[in-house]
Amino acid sequence: MADHVLALNAGSSSLKFGLYELVENNRPSMRWHGQIESLGDAPRLLAESAGGRSINQPLTDTHGHDEAIQAFLDMVDENLPDIRIRAIGHRVVHGGPVYSEPVRIDKGVMATLTGFIPFAPLHQPFSLAGIRAASNAFPDTIQVACFDTAFHRTHPWVNDTFALPQSYYDKGVRRYGFHGLSYDYITQKLKEIAPGLYDGRVVIAHLGNGASMCAVSGGRAVASTMGFSALDGLPMGTRSGQLDPGVVLYMMQQEGMSAEEIADMLYRKSGLLGLSGMSSDMRTLLAAETPEARKAIDYYVFRIRRELGALSAALEGLDAVVFTGGIGENAALIRQRVCEGMRWIGIEMDPNRNADNGTVLSTDFSRVRILLIPTHEEMVIARAAARMVP
Amino acid sequence: MADHVLALNAGSSSLKFGLYELVENNRPSMRWHGQIESLGDAPRLLAESAGGRSINQPLTDTHGHDEAIQAFLDMVDENLPDIRIRAIGHRVVHGGPVYSEPVRIDKGVMATLTGFIPFAPLHQPFSLAGIRAASNAFPDTIQVACFDTAFHRTHPWVNDTFALPQSYYDKGVRRYGFHGLSYDYITQKLKEIAPGLYDGRVVIAHLGNGASMCAVSGGRAVASTMGFSALDGLPMGTRSGQLDPGVVLYMMQQEGMSAEEIADMLYRKSGLLGLSGMSSDMRTLLAAETPEARKAIDYYVFRIRRELGALSAALEGLDAVVFTGGIGENAALIRQRVCEGMRWIGIEMDPNRNADNGTVLSTDFSRVRILLIPTHEEMVIARAAARMVP
Repeated sequence: MADHVLALNAGSSSLKFGLYELVENNRPSMRWHGQIESLGDAPRLLAESAGGRSINQPLTDTHGHDEAIQAFLDMVDENLPDIRIRAIGHRVVHGGPVYSEPVRIDKGVMATLTGFIPFAPLHQPFSLAGIRAASNAFPDTIQVACFDTAFHRTHPWVNDTFALPQSYYDKGVRRYGFHGLSYDYITQKLKEIAPGLYDGRVVIAHLGNGASMCAVSGGRAVASTMGFSALDGLPMGTRSGQLDPGVVLYMMQQEGMSAEEIADMLYRKSGLLGLSGMSSDMRTLLAAETPEARKAIDYYVFRIRRELGALSAALEGLDAVVFTGGIGENAALIRQRVCEGMRWIGIEMDPNRNADNGTVLSTDFSRVRILLIPTHEEMVIARAAARMVP
Repeated sequence: MADHVLALNAGSSSLKFGLYELVENNRPSMRWHGQIESLGDAPRLLAESAGGRSINQPLTDTHGHDEAIQAFLDMVDENLPDIRIRAIGHRVVHGGPVYSEPVRIDKGVMATLTGFIPFAPLHQPFSLAGIRAASNAFPDTIQVACFDTAFHRTHPWVNDTFALPQSYYDKGVRRYGFHGLSYDYITQKLKEIAPGLYDGRVVIAHLGNGASMCAVSGGRAVASTMGFSALDGLPMGTRSGQLDPGVVLYMMQQEGMSAEEIADMLYRKSGLLGLSGMSSDMRTLLAAETPEARKAIDYYVFRIRRELGALSAALEGLDAVVFTGGIGENAALIRQRVCEGMRWIGIEMDPNRNADNGTVLSTDFSRVRILLIPTHEEMVIARAAARMVP
């Protein structure tokens, strides 16, 4: 009976999982990862093993997270009959002002996390549904919550507040920042491969379907482009990023839009999709020849540069930039265009290294290092779960 | 009969004026400036002449802009009986996407400007009330509209749009930027006193009761911290500055606030006032010893530095920073604290020059120049009016 931990990430219509064997010193080693997707529509199970096997099968009658967990367990029974799951780690969108590190889940923690729903009404309920489903299926197993907000709890006050009456800060309207599991992974990796940069001033650009950037100084988060919600900062696939609050007032007062309509517009119809009128997918836009696709990319690249300047001010200088996330890891042209405009700050990209998707993308003479580090958020969850195994 | 032009700036409860004599080549030279304040409450006329005379008197029965103009005319009749007003220039908050320079006002222009009210519902109506009042009092005089947005119409597209569907850009939801008359004045002054810097990359920080920063390259505006409304960007006396749009959604969905209540919160109860719980006035905060006042100042200073980094990215480097506006011109400590955190970008302040409120505040060895230039927005209006005089 080999000991394993499970990392779960429950979204609105999917359940992502990573199954890790605990090897020497309880270190997690990935065995299987995948997801049950299109829950409630045409659900499928997709999975890949570390050894190269893959599964892709339709699921019938899999509608909610409980049934998704069951589908996952059936897969485990069939493919890995002799394992024991010692702990389950959950990605939880919002840890509020309270949690600055992973926490073992009990009734009190669940109540606290439920109280954060108003901060992330579109996302937190699914995190909690995933926890409940796993607790039903594994009533005696350790459950651990890992927060996207936790890494940012070291922000100084000026990067934690908005210029609103203090009562808003007190009731939790703060600059939480998200993608913290990714930043945690990258920061730990940096400590391992480049301890000198880990000690310095680093901006990590997590460019995926969601996107944000984080300023890290001596391994601790100092600032993020994301604020209270997952809307702020960089433009994303379908999210607006930075927006004048006056535009929201305009939508209310001049267009008579409801809160739900505005949320739908800003979360699902804006960003790259809104600007291009074509796609939220950077690969599609890069392949397209339309002026709208080009303009959407121009805007995307410019906003990354603008935030790179802003976060450098928060760090009082810059020693390294790290690209990660789907776009950051794969779109060499985006990385190139971001860096081209940043020579003034000491960034000098080596075009060949960039084209080859190496780890170091800067020239040997660049004052600021440019790195490419693939992220692995589930590993951070698996490590947190593994630490709780007695 | 000496030829004069009049510069008017109509607000919700005030009418500011500047009376300029046209000297050689129709150059405007300030003779009187002042305001009728507290309209509709306890109105007063305050005025000062270039020669050092001053007027401070209560006005009875002065409620609207029409009566304010009449009070101004009475003052002129009494003090300058022999002048002729050849043209009147008006500060107009919003010129929409249309106007990139001053325009002579006719019925068509008024209709166009009325169409921009949805973009600035709290401010544009007063600009138009001022024009109507002046047109009633001077039916045969040239009236000229000068726009706070005009200077910014050279922004490249990436600094003009938000990441919303293209239809929003088309209907005028853009990053207009404001304080354009001030930036215009500073830029012209820079051309006169420092043509080399005028040709370079300059960030102008207009820090007054309203506050924004503008990136200027070769004399042309490239980016502004203000966007669609006068809310965005830097925190101000009572305005929030940059705010996650998710916070507005939170106010709607979780607190049940109406658009009017949110606008009131963000325009009138936030910023320095909201953070300090004490005052919107920087002088009061600087004199106060409370932790809240200090935190409000910390936030203010940090956001200026953050935007200085961001605008340097928009300019791809930085050659000079110019401070202006009430706080920028008078609060040496704020300038000092902004610059202290910006050494990494090549800013090196001379503390003695800063304390003396000189024109050049940087050391002789600073790579980036720091300048202090008092702004004079009415002069820009007067010049525009003078250019229209046949």
